Amino acid sequence: MRIEIITIGDELLIGQVVNSNAAWMGRELTQHGFVITAITTVGDHSDNIMQAIEVAFGRADILLLTGGVGPTNDDITKHTLCRYFHTALEFNDEVLQNIESVFLKRNLLLNQLTRKQAYVPVSATVIQNKAGTAPILWFNKEEKVLVSMPGVPFEMKMTMRDDIIPRLQKQFQVKQYLRRTYLVSGITESSLATRLAGFETMLPTGFSLAYLPSFGFIRLRLSAWGAEHEQEMKQLGRKLKMLLGDEFVARSEKTAEALLGDKLRKLQLRVSTAESCTGGFIAHRITAIPGASDYFEGSIVSYDNRIKEDVLGVEKSAIGKFGVVSREVVEQMARNVANKLKTGCSIAVSGIMGPEGGTKEKPVGTVWICTQNGDEQLSVEYRVGSNREENIERTANLAILQLLKMLTRKGVTESN
Amino acid sequence: MRIEIITIGDELLIGQVVNSNAAWMGRELTQHGFVITAITTVGDHSDNIMQAIEVAFGRADILLLTGGVGPTNDDITKHTLCRYFHTALEFNDEVLQNIESVFLKRNLLLNQLTRKQAYVPVSATVIQNKAGTAPILWFNKEEKVLVSMPGVPFEMKMTMRDDIIPRLQKQFQVKQYLRRTYLVSGITESSLATRLAGFETMLPTGFSLAYLPSFGFIRLRLSAWGAEHEQEMKQLGRKLKMLLGDEFVARSEKTAEALLGDKLRKLQLRVSTAESCTGGFIAHRITAIPGASDYFEGSIVSYDNRIKEDVLGVEKSAIGKFGVVSREVVEQMARNVANKLKTGCSIAVSGIMGPEGGTKEKPVGTVWICTQNGDEQLSVEYRVGSNREENIERTANLAILQLLKMLTRKGVTESN
Repeated sequence: MRIEIITIGDELLIGQVVNSNAAWMGRELTQHGFVITAITTVGDHSDNIMQAIEVAFGRADILLLTGGVGPTNDDITKHTLCRYFHTALEFNDEVLQNIESVFLKRNLLLNQLTRKQAYVPVSATVIQNKAGTAPILWFNKEEKVLVSMPGVPFEMKMTMRDDIIPRLQKQFQVKQYLRRTYLVSGITESSLATRLAGFETMLPTGFSLAYLPSFGFIRLRLSAWGAEHEQEMKQLGRKLKMLLGDEFVARSEKTAEALLGDKLRKLQLRVSTAESCTGGFIAHRITAIPGASDYFEGSIVSYDNRIKEDVLGVEKSAIGKFGVVSREVVEQMARNVANKLKTGCSIAVSGIMGPEGGTKEKPVGTVWICTQNGDEQLSVEYRVGSNREENIERTANLAILQLLKMLTRKGVTESN
Repeated sequence: MRIEIITIGDELLIGQVVNSNAAWMGRELTQHGFVITAITTVGDHSDNIMQAIEVAFGRADILLLTGGVGPTNDDITKHTLCRYFHTALEFNDEVLQNIESVFLKRNLLLNQLTRKQAYVPVSATVIQNKAGTAPILWFNKEEKVLVSMPGVPFEMKMTMRDDIIPRLQKQFQVKQYLRRTYLVSGITESSLATRLAGFETMLPTGFSLAYLPSFGFIRLRLSAWGAEHEQEMKQLGRKLKMLLGDEFVARSEKTAEALLGDKLRKLQLRVSTAESCTGGFIAHRITAIPGASDYFEGSIVSYDNRIKEDVLGVEKSAIGKFGVVSREVVEQMARNVANKLKTGCSIAVSGIMGPEGGTKEKPVGTVWICTQNGDEQLSVEYRVGSNREENIERTANLAILQLLKMLTRKGVTESN
């Protein structure tokens, strides 16, 4: 069942608002077995909305429109829909009652502008908006459907879950979407594609494999339509995991830091970080996960070398002999931060993020990462890129993945 | 000059990735005087890409495509463009050299798949990708232009800024776009709009004032088209600055952390941070700026209370008496981190980011921020929101702005 999403609003075109509504709808609809063929964003401009609807109806059976349904003059979706469906507005008492009850809950007084929202197109079926004042409008056009809903994320989500998806599933008997997502690290996209070339070639009809590369890792998505593929999906998934070998990190759609959090919580371990070049970004990524206080203790960001010596207790002689970006220094950082902050695990990084600071022996992009679990340390040298912003992100991902892999292997060993 | 953006990738349709590329491009292009008429997202599907191009060329003069240009089989933009422009692929030595140099920097070996990226459409002008392996392809079609670029955000941003926008400005002789951007904090958007209502009403034709609210601050952009407005722009700018009063932070498009860096460097001050709820994010923001080692010393992220006591030396009695989210605790944190890390300035934050941890007296969103410069401390209590991710970002912005304002006032006093 093909769906297209049309998001309406100048604020989306000029980038004042990121279109997270479309992403949410895409996720939710895909999980319910719908196929999204396109997402179109147009401004509050009647002709452009009309054209977007025409083009989209050429490809899809269901159009979902968000936005442009507020009470002010620049919100013109409703009038455009009257134009498109050759219908007119009429006053709807139930909508007014709904608006009044929403206003009552918020302790607000109804004004003339808001009353205008009770005018709805004659040919539309009205779904009441439980969280706001703009009604949801459902149009049938032969075998096809167009639904117009508010762009306010909370209102959109509520009506999508409670009203629109259930009604669509009923009206169009939908197939189930199966997928498995794999987090892979330590290999480039092209090397991975080479390794999986044979697997990809022999994939049965209906199955597909997608590569979603990111900084320091790749997500692989194996997918198929229809519950009848479930058994085959399992077998293919097992085969794929085997092919991924040491580069396999997890079968999950979660972020690396969320997976690390799960692992630490499960193993009842706590972690601290000693960061030089990442400047606190690893700690931030770990603490961006709700409930991180269950396993995250703290961090010492030793941006200046003096802090490495004074606060982290790295030996001046080690810095002098091996340089600040070296195995010896990150190993001392990892050991000392774990001791100082009393954690079982730790992550320490030191590197050159650029644009300045590179030398011939240690060019921009050189990074040492040490991860520690109890008495065990793992130290790896990486070459990231030449762009500072990207380097910081890639280094944080690599560090989190390095500890995650270390704990996963340990987990495996323990359970053997 | 009308532009349309076409973003390509199944991951955008199924909502695995939020389309922040489109928002960034929308912002950047608008600031450079281009008008965006629509954004279309389609999957890695040749017919749909073809149709999106045809529809978009019907409305716009310039099409910018991102995504679908990787080395794997699911990336089909290049082949689709050959189909659309009736051209074929040819091997390009310069692209191969560029790919080799990118691989060399990352210490990787070239494989057959990556070599495929050196095949480019005959009729395209190639722009080298300084940050990745997929070349940027520029097509002229009568008076119109289509550019295909990678979807990797960092690569897209670099080529947009360095290559594409400058070339488009030249080819389409975009009228000079005059603008002044003001960073404002400590006022809501609606209060600001009320204060500036009179100013807005009397703006001469051709001028406009845009509000770009963000987490913890608002950017105001006063703009006009054409160099002839320059004198008037200056006068209006001065008037606007006066109206902004104490809420004015800077006239600049720089980020708050870049402005703080400039200020610290100018005053020859160094800064450290003591972070609880922001988990290192303030330190990250400060160190994301190249050259931050000129003024940033380090940070102690005391996520757990024990670290506040053991490492930062906050008195146990203060935490017991006032709670960990209190004026007393952040003032001790700010003082102690500055002493420990030997910096003239410091930032300390403690708050409840949610979703858990709120109480009746101190609900989720309660934050105390102390900024210190020498002997002077400024402590402010804020109420941020209820969303964790937003709260962390808002708190970091507020903290950076608080120190920036403190140093700016000091700068003013000194120079008087």
